[in-house]
Amino acid sequence: MRMVDLIEKKRDGFELSTEEIQFIVTGYTKGKIADYQMSAFLMAVYFKNMTERERADLTIAMANSGDQIDLSAIDGIKVDKHSTGGVGDTTTLVLGPLVAACGVPVAKMSGRGLGHTGGTIDKLEAIEGFHVEITSEEFIKQVNDIKLAVVGQSGNLTPADKKLYALRDVTATVNSIPLIASSIMSKKIAAGADAIVLDVKTGEGAFMKTEEDARELAHAMVGIGNSTGRKTMAIISDMSQPLGFAIGNALEVKEAIETLQGKGPEDLTELCLVLGSQMVVVGGKAETLEEARGMLEEVIANGKALEVMKQFIEAQGGNPAVVDDVDLLPQAKFVTEVPSEQDGYISFMEADEIGTAAMVLGAGRATKESEIDLAVGIVLNKKVGDRVEKGESIATIYSNTEELAECMKMLYNSIEYSSEPVDKVQLISALITD
Amino acid sequence: MRMVDLIEKKRDGFELSTEEIQFIVTGYTKGKIADYQMSAFLMAVYFKNMTERERADLTIAMANSGDQIDLSAIDGIKVDKHSTGGVGDTTTLVLGPLVAACGVPVAKMSGRGLGHTGGTIDKLEAIEGFHVEITSEEFIKQVNDIKLAVVGQSGNLTPADKKLYALRDVTATVNSIPLIASSIMSKKIAAGADAIVLDVKTGEGAFMKTEEDARELAHAMVGIGNSTGRKTMAIISDMSQPLGFAIGNALEVKEAIETLQGKGPEDLTELCLVLGSQMVVVGGKAETLEEARGMLEEVIANGKALEVMKQFIEAQGGNPAVVDDVDLLPQAKFVTEVPSEQDGYISFMEADEIGTAAMVLGAGRATKESEIDLAVGIVLNKKVGDRVEKGESIATIYSNTEELAECMKMLYNSIEYSSEPVDKVQLISALITD
Repeated sequence: MRMVDLIEKKRDGFELSTEEIQFIVTGYTKGKIADYQMSAFLMAVYFKNMTERERADLTIAMANSGDQIDLSAIDGIKVDKHSTGGVGDTTTLVLGPLVAACGVPVAKMSGRGLGHTGGTIDKLEAIEGFHVEITSEEFIKQVNDIKLAVVGQSGNLTPADKKLYALRDVTATVNSIPLIASSIMSKKIAAGADAIVLDVKTGEGAFMKTEEDARELAHAMVGIGNSTGRKTMAIISDMSQPLGFAIGNALEVKEAIETLQGKGPEDLTELCLVLGSQMVVVGGKAETLEEARGMLEEVIANGKALEVMKQFIEAQGGNPAVVDDVDLLPQAKFVTEVPSEQDGYISFMEADEIGTAAMVLGAGRATKESEIDLAVGIVLNKKVGDRVEKGESIATIYSNTEELAECMKMLYNSIEYSSEPVDKVQLISALITD
Repeated sequence: MRMVDLIEKKRDGFELSTEEIQFIVTGYTKGKIADYQMSAFLMAVYFKNMTERERADLTIAMANSGDQIDLSAIDGIKVDKHSTGGVGDTTTLVLGPLVAACGVPVAKMSGRGLGHTGGTIDKLEAIEGFHVEITSEEFIKQVNDIKLAVVGQSGNLTPADKKLYALRDVTATVNSIPLIASSIMSKKIAAGADAIVLDVKTGEGAFMKTEEDARELAHAMVGIGNSTGRKTMAIISDMSQPLGFAIGNALEVKEAIETLQGKGPEDLTELCLVLGSQMVVVGGKAETLEEARGMLEEVIANGKALEVMKQFIEAQGGNPAVVDDVDLLPQAKFVTEVPSEQDGYISFMEADEIGTAAMVLGAGRATKESEIDLAVGIVLNKKVGDRVEKGESIATIYSNTEELAECMKMLYNSIEYSSEPVDKVQLISALITD
């Protein structure tokens, strides 16, 4: 088999066989296929796409390219959730305890990452004593005991995907649905997921700017999941404005706890109920989404979800009292209101710009070396559709500095007004269940 | 300027600026742009094509990437001819003396190359004493004196094209019209051509298998030529069967001499008159193709073309007596007829297979290191459309070995018969003059 012939085959729109895709991924991972052949192949894929079978084969080949997490010692169907990323996305912190309380085992491997705020691990570390340095035996035992554990990424997972992503980044082949979908799904499968729920974000603050692209990606990932024997569902959700009110690590933990108490923001609560319902169904604990939603509402109402959160924090060395007293979380020195410069209805809040404003405060990492300030961030007091009077606070800044000019400027820049009433943003535009 | 942005621009179908194309070609030649970025770019060009302006810019940037031959000391418009390659193509040997006899200066840089037979230089070296090791001063003086000289390739011409071609070969990006056209034209321009005539071959024995592809390539090259101030014309000619009768080095020299004497094969003669007419017109020695053709017919009829051939051979150290006595050319030891295995009309003669049969005899190089036997080859006695009786000779093999089984088998395999009369092949299907 020669790589040049496989490039030509894809270039000419033919379907590659399972063996051919394995040859490409294995050869590239081992350095037997050169970057210059792989990049030409990736560009051919960009133009000619891949069939569902090819996408599944690519995903499995990438998942098999390195270590694979064995979660077979955990009882039940291990469900993982993935979000394509956005601003103020606190769902993982809510969903873990929520679905665990319904009996779905959540064995989460998570990262820190770059961006507007830290990753799930950074956020959890805002809880005093909480740590993710647990052995795989402890990890498995904890999931079997309380259905929920979070561990830091370890091992050499999907090296093929890492190498491919670096190449795609410099060859204008990032924006290809089969390549994005197989990259995400290969990591979930290598991390041991039996079933997967996907939150594909769309809008200004998301990677997929249009609803159409988001749908295509969601269908691609659900197709891969089901072709590879992992029950998979997805939703398309809005990321034109930040999700919930809080953007910042401790602030988002507080918001997550409030949501588990049934007092969270409307949009975050709804998103968690919809994603959670899918997780409970693919996890085999309910037959229908309606049934699952009823279970989730019950574990919020009866406090069971909050109880799992406490057990989870305690099991990983954290202070569970934070659940009952969120003031135990790190507090910023300065709290500053951002007064509206005019009257009107808020017609747009640019998620990306608001996220960057939070990063400027120190809530997120600009580079791998950046230090995160867990206490700082922004809490929105208004969202799209809300009426606001001049001078009324649209957001509250939590900072450890009095120098807020840059952050303020970004916040003002991110907001647009209308003199006419404006509809609220539709949060979830599609459920993709097969 | 970042290469990844230029890849994306081309991928998305936008036109690159002159500066952007120069940045790509210069950066790649100097090793500042990596192979993996260039191959992704080439694949994007494969799918998105290039405008005429982009093609011209790419051609000039490649022509400027290395040495450029200065032919300004030669009087008149220097015309070069290029054929996209085929089997038994003796046109250069005929056209040089033919158009030189009409006053068009032919300053030809030529090579040896791989293939069924040698290159133009190999063929000329079948003439005793002929050599191409002349200085550039001698070369220029000879063209000014007798209008014709052939020199071996020297200098570092179009290194960008060499590097790009090697990359295209392993990344399935060879078959792209803008890339093929700019590659050919950049070499002609770097070699100093003021005007260019192109013979684009089509059919089984050619690189362009279909008439449509051949037309597209011809138009692309004429477009580039005219955009870069080099008057350019092209024809599309058949290469489904070999051109003329002879395939082999000395055998083709003999055929060329016979054609200059007005006794050559009908198809080779016609092709040389058509290409020669274009050369005389772009060389500024005639206003119309008809006028030019009359001049060419005259220099054949009055022996002037043959006289230039003699002067040319003598000037480069060869024995001019060969023109009057072709038996002075190297002679093969064995002459073997190939009898027809059946009665019928010849409906197909596969050029490529017959060329390979000649190479097997030693007429061409399989690898750079192969030795060529200048005496050997094949002379066809029949061509498509001819009636043949069983036992009648369809070809004559000139060899230095008695072991002809492989060559014979290939010849028989290359020929198809019909019981019904078959039309002769149309030699020239299009003239592209602007």
